[in-house]
Amino acid sequence: MSKNLTKREEDYSKWYNELVVKADLAENSGVRGCMVIKPYGYAIWEKMQAELDKKFKETGHSNAYFPLFVPKSMFEAEEKNAEGFAKECAIVTHYRLMNDPDNKGKLIVDPKAKLEEELIVRPTSEAIIWSTYKGWVQSYRDLPLLINQWANVVRWEMRTRLFLRTAEFLWQEGHTAHATKIEAIEESEKMMNVYADFVQNFMAIPVVKGLKTESERFAGAEETYCIEALMQDGKALQAGTSHFLGQNFAKAFDVKFANQEGKQEYVWGTSWGVSTRLMGALVMTHSDDNGLVLPPNLAPIQVVVVPIHKTDEQLEAISNQVNELVVKLRNLGVSVKYDDRTTHKPGFKFAEWELKGVPLRIAIGPKDLENGTYEVARRDILSKEVVSKEGIEIFIKNKLDQIQEELFTKAVDYRTNHTTEVNDFEEFKSVLESKGGFVSAHWDGTIETEENIKNLTKATIRCIPLDRVEETGSCVFTGNPSVGRVLFAKAY
Amino acid sequence: MSKNLTKREEDYSKWYNELVVKADLAENSGVRGCMVIKPYGYAIWEKMQAELDKKFKETGHSNAYFPLFVPKSMFEAEEKNAEGFAKECAIVTHYRLMNDPDNKGKLIVDPKAKLEEELIVRPTSEAIIWSTYKGWVQSYRDLPLLINQWANVVRWEMRTRLFLRTAEFLWQEGHTAHATKIEAIEESEKMMNVYADFVQNFMAIPVVKGLKTESERFAGAEETYCIEALMQDGKALQAGTSHFLGQNFAKAFDVKFANQEGKQEYVWGTSWGVSTRLMGALVMTHSDDNGLVLPPNLAPIQVVVVPIHKTDEQLEAISNQVNELVVKLRNLGVSVKYDDRTTHKPGFKFAEWELKGVPLRIAIGPKDLENGTYEVARRDILSKEVVSKEGIEIFIKNKLDQIQEELFTKAVDYRTNHTTEVNDFEEFKSVLESKGGFVSAHWDGTIETEENIKNLTKATIRCIPLDRVEETGSCVFTGNPSVGRVLFAKAY
Repeated sequence: MSKNLTKREEDYSKWYNELVVKADLAENSGVRGCMVIKPYGYAIWEKMQAELDKKFKETGHSNAYFPLFVPKSMFEAEEKNAEGFAKECAIVTHYRLMNDPDNKGKLIVDPKAKLEEELIVRPTSEAIIWSTYKGWVQSYRDLPLLINQWANVVRWEMRTRLFLRTAEFLWQEGHTAHATKIEAIEESEKMMNVYADFVQNFMAIPVVKGLKTESERFAGAEETYCIEALMQDGKALQAGTSHFLGQNFAKAFDVKFANQEGKQEYVWGTSWGVSTRLMGALVMTHSDDNGLVLPPNLAPIQVVVVPIHKTDEQLEAISNQVNELVVKLRNLGVSVKYDDRTTHKPGFKFAEWELKGVPLRIAIGPKDLENGTYEVARRDILSKEVVSKEGIEIFIKNKLDQIQEELFTKAVDYRTNHTTEVNDFEEFKSVLESKGGFVSAHWDGTIETEENIKNLTKATIRCIPLDRVEETGSCVFTGNPSVGRVLFAKAY
Repeated sequence: MSKNLTKREEDYSKWYNELVVKADLAENSGVRGCMVIKPYGYAIWEKMQAELDKKFKETGHSNAYFPLFVPKSMFEAEEKNAEGFAKECAIVTHYRLMNDPDNKGKLIVDPKAKLEEELIVRPTSEAIIWSTYKGWVQSYRDLPLLINQWANVVRWEMRTRLFLRTAEFLWQEGHTAHATKIEAIEESEKMMNVYADFVQNFMAIPVVKGLKTESERFAGAEETYCIEALMQDGKALQAGTSHFLGQNFAKAFDVKFANQEGKQEYVWGTSWGVSTRLMGALVMTHSDDNGLVLPPNLAPIQVVVVPIHKTDEQLEAISNQVNELVVKLRNLGVSVKYDDRTTHKPGFKFAEWELKGVPLRIAIGPKDLENGTYEVARRDILSKEVVSKEGIEIFIKNKLDQIQEELFTKAVDYRTNHTTEVNDFEEFKSVLESKGGFVSAHWDGTIETEENIKNLTKATIRCIPLDRVEETGSCVFTGNPSVGRVLFAKAY
């Protein structure tokens, strides 16, 4: 096991890329911009999926599945949506390969098999879903439609990075339709809160809930709610968005319903999504120069047990005891792996599980057998302690809860230390350069100012926090009046 | 609720198409050949996924995710695979749309954004996965690789039918790599058995396990194991396949390992899959002229409770009692819906849940309140009985188990009655025409005979049953020697 991980301080970006590959989360594939999510990485994604799916169902949503392809004309229907998304995408133009007559064993595209209308590989599914909803909604009794889809989507990104920006990625996309505006707005806010609850309590990543400015908003939306997280390098990462679509898609796809008075009205829509990008946020929030650090709620293996022995008799005695412990831990719902490979030394195993972020490591040697103890090591703070074997399963269970909590607290502290209120533009720039993070500043509310600041500093408005204090002030860039602070940051 | 379902006897195919749509399982989309899987249908698919996924993990497999796209050259690598699959498929040739300069609001494919190499939307993932495995396998210690993927795939079918044959469909595909031939063969057989166990015990569909003949085999495989089911119209349906790939893909993608003696060898492969096609098998095995019949193991709603009342007071009294029952049933793991809609009459509700195949319906009216009873109706045999409320939850739970078993028995009986041994070709044709089903006959083992029989009767060899008796005989078509019977049928 060669660790040789680049240090975060040296090159944060390189550290991230190396770690994702070395910890067996994902790797680049033979297809430009597309990744392979490896079993260990996928196991974490499955845990995220399971928890989110449960939350979606608890809030009344059902899953369904819509086509991968969207005919070009459907994209054009919602003009702003088309502007925002449809440009950089994978386009299917033909449906058959044939043997190359000039080159045996080679295949070429059959020129006769050209599609009448090109198909876009979905970059998002509003168009195909709203064109379907038209057939599903007649009366107010058919509403609300509360539907989610787990799917792959494709956006033809030129510069890609594992999990953070890939041509194909996995996500869920909720698409709901409602009889009233207020109900749709409530739904958008509810799902933002579901995301925030999940990311904070399950992934141990603190987020700011807020609204996007017009220029950062989803093209087809009236309002975009978001949750913004802060990575260890001081850059922000948008962890999830929830859009209030108004009647934009209903009008584009003619989705009307008869209200209680029998009058025809357009329905109100929302859409909301999180993606495998969250895997990137997970890595960049908690991990360190030794490798991954995983919150226990997401760790495929929560506890690894490593035997330390010289003789076969010792190993047998250790194994007998460990097998009992494993049963006790599993009964408490703890996922545990007993690493009794004889092909590798304990030091190698320690390094491997450290790299893979297993929250707790238990080592047991002949001394421990004599004393009735185990050595328990925490991955996050790299501490060790010797614990009596009596009741150790309860100790372990509690320790996992404690780690989950402390990882969150640590990330909150980091964010607190990297959120700075500034009142003039020189300070703005210097804070951004020196320590990064969120810069809380007054803004005059114009797209122009936002654009100027972005061009000068690369910082964008991450969000208008929902819990911001209404306070009058002067824009940090123009000095024009402002009604409250917004959060700027450089972002992924 | 308009049922008006075509009768199976009148037009089986029409009955199927109507039922899938009316029971809210799926519908055709605005994209040629692609379906929308509706929430009720998807809920059934999710139950299938959950059970299969559990079985895969119990047999040591992990999930992972590989790219949607396969570069054209990768397909060419395994020649037979390319012949078998790559022809009819969706081909991405461009990666950008642009505004049409001649037609405001319209989008056209940007001719400058042509891909250097075309990308095929995966019809199956052997090529992309084996090109990845090359990087994952160095030594025998890296083997076996036991990986599964849940994914969408695309095959450009000209004539499509909901679930049975669609351009895009959902499936799982297992892809494993082994150090020895025997281990790979064992894996192929193991996964065929996992499928058979699932389809029989969970879906209540009996299957024949067998081997495909050369002409029905997966192009890149040395041997294809399959499970074959029989539908109510006497046609067979291939419910799952498991391929022993030999070293074909290992050689095509140069996947070698150092064995225990340090010698380089090619690895041995398998792949295996089942798809949303199983939804079609489910509908066509159990359902009837009144609608869906679902085995309790797969029913999203196992029990529906319908109140029958004239006054609000009656409804309240019924609801109080039903709420207690619902809790008791849920504690037993029974999924139950209380349909207390006041917008619809009981008769409408009965018809709706009948159409949707809910296994048990409980009705309760004022008389039942007085007598301490419920009326319990079975969907599968359309029977009714009055049951005392004391301990009814246990009665219901047992009844569900009984229904699951009886559906399977009924399907086995149907298959037994529709499996005919024939010994001459006239009989072969007449059985096939009069009652269909499996025709068990001797075959001389040649592709030519198989082809001739297919051309004359539309029947193909569904499989060489694994449990067939070795018996010498004469081919039903040529009279040439044969070593045992094979199963012929017309098939989906």
